Amino acid sequence: MWPPEEVVSELCLRGDLWQAAPGLVGMRGRLFDLARDVEMAIAAVARAETGDEWRVPSGIAFDTLETAQYFASFPQWLTAASHLSGDEALLEQVATSASPGASARRCMSPASAALSPAVCYHIYAALAGCSIHERKLMTAEATCWRHEGDRFAPLARGWAFQMREIVFVGTTRGAEEFRQRGMVSASALAASLGIETATSEATDPFFAPTARGRSLLQRLKALKHELTIEHYDGRQLAIASFNNHESFFGEAFGISLLDGSPAYSACVAYGLDRWLLAFLVTHGPDAAAWPAIDAASLMELIPGGH
Amino acid sequence: MWPPEEVVSELCLRGDLWQAAPGLVGMRGRLFDLARDVEMAIAAVARAETGDEWRVPSGIAFDTLETAQYFASFPQWLTAASHLSGDEALLEQVATSASPGASARRCMSPASAALSPAVCYHIYAALAGCSIHERKLMTAEATCWRHEGDRFAPLARGWAFQMREIVFVGTTRGAEEFRQRGMVSASALAASLGIETATSEATDPFFAPTARGRSLLQRLKALKHELTIEHYDGRQLAIASFNNHESFFGEAFGISLLDGSPAYSACVAYGLDRWLLAFLVTHGPDAAAWPAIDAASLMELIPGGH
Repeated sequence: MWPPEEVVSELCLRGDLWQAAPGLVGMRGRLFDLARDVEMAIAAVARAETGDEWRVPSGIAFDTLETAQYFASFPQWLTAASHLSGDEALLEQVATSASPGASARRCMSPASAALSPAVCYHIYAALAGCSIHERKLMTAEATCWRHEGDRFAPLARGWAFQMREIVFVGTTRGAEEFRQRGMVSASALAASLGIETATSEATDPFFAPTARGRSLLQRLKALKHELTIEHYDGRQLAIASFNNHESFFGEAFGISLLDGSPAYSACVAYGLDRWLLAFLVTHGPDAAAWPAIDAASLMELIPGGH
Repeated sequence: MWPPEEVVSELCLRGDLWQAAPGLVGMRGRLFDLARDVEMAIAAVARAETGDEWRVPSGIAFDTLETAQYFASFPQWLTAASHLSGDEALLEQVATSASPGASARRCMSPASAALSPAVCYHIYAALAGCSIHERKLMTAEATCWRHEGDRFAPLARGWAFQMREIVFVGTTRGAEEFRQRGMVSASALAASLGIETATSEATDPFFAPTARGRSLLQRLKALKHELTIEHYDGRQLAIASFNNHESFFGEAFGISLLDGSPAYSACVAYGLDRWLLAFLVTHGPDAAAWPAIDAASLMELIPGGH
């Protein structure tokens, strides 16, 4: 196991990894190829579970986040997209300023959309008001944004990061079975990439003043597990999570089963930059030492994979 | 040729296309598969030109946009990412508000990064201060953001949209040859997808008060061409552009040739959502009528493709 800081600084030195701003990284060279191969392996696992792939929008309406009770749950992470107004005089003031960047920052209009903090809210919003027979399953990969103060570290914790989710909406029993199956596939995939992992119970970092209750329930009912890298520099780093939301989103978005009861939902979320990091701390920063990743042959190692 | 509004409304009705907020679209079903196939065909053309693929960061520093003289050129489009401050009392005020979305919009901190308005600025920033032997070529696909007031139309004009660029940095002659080659490959690709196009001189919609001069020079020297869809509902819609920046970015970012002179740059930009729309208005919204897209066999039709 390589120390993550050493791997990251080696990649930065080589120019394969860089930060455009805190929490915003770029990749090139062999690192780009590796990221793509890791993501294709995860996509293959997701497609074995569901043939239905979506591309979710890059931003999300504040109303949708309200419906999802996002502001009570994780206000600390919220990131939004704002723009300059179309007012000609204001634009000219920015354009002619000696410090136009600072001037633009002061002149932005109030944000008109949030940047997606997760993939699955888009899916519940698209299914709002629907009635589901047994189950629906879909997968999507997207750039997600969570502002975590000054805790950013390249690949381990980004302001923007790539995430693939597999989402289940349907029966109570189906949701938990899906989540359990997700744990098995994700740890089998990690093992086939040579990554040692452990699965353990977890809770979301809910905003305490308004969502302590959800955190307690989550722990009590064991609704969340995480797949973490073993021996990661003495710390915990989750690379995937397995979440049973029970009827929370079904009720919030009016998604029901045929008998009229609110649908259950569950999601499996892969943090793609962290899978890349897990591969790198396992096999080192030198491309010559990386085992080849062939999504098709990996799939033979995954239970239920095809 | 199908009317674009009819195609879009048919896809929306079917649920394959939807807007999460003005200018922010999602895709699923057969439309998702088609988008992926079109993008893979364009990626194959880009990789035939350059084997070097990058993933650029999701946001960009205001300083980098200042260096690129973005604020004088296109302030009207600027979109930025802002977040809530970590202040506990403020977060609690948002979290407990009866209208938390509206409350959050009022409480955002000043934006700390811009959302990428184009791919190539990231590339010049990464090459800043470098000395180039003959030429460097790279490609990247990214989500770009440009706020165009109330002119949004699904697939034709998004606030966020997918763009693939191929970027050349090097000699004066190499830059123009690259741009000319780009026009040939892009129109050959369009033809192989059945899309009728025309190539014509164009100018960027520079902000007049501060960049009228650049617009005039661009026209005078024929530095920009666009590939447009023929017979598109009586209007012009560009699906790719071919831009010679001369030494503009080489000087701005201190990128030089071995003799110390500023490097020239040029880029070929494919608007991926618009390629999808071009395919759809050509072949219709019904998947049964879509010709198969096989990136490998298309490449045989592209001059210099392999």
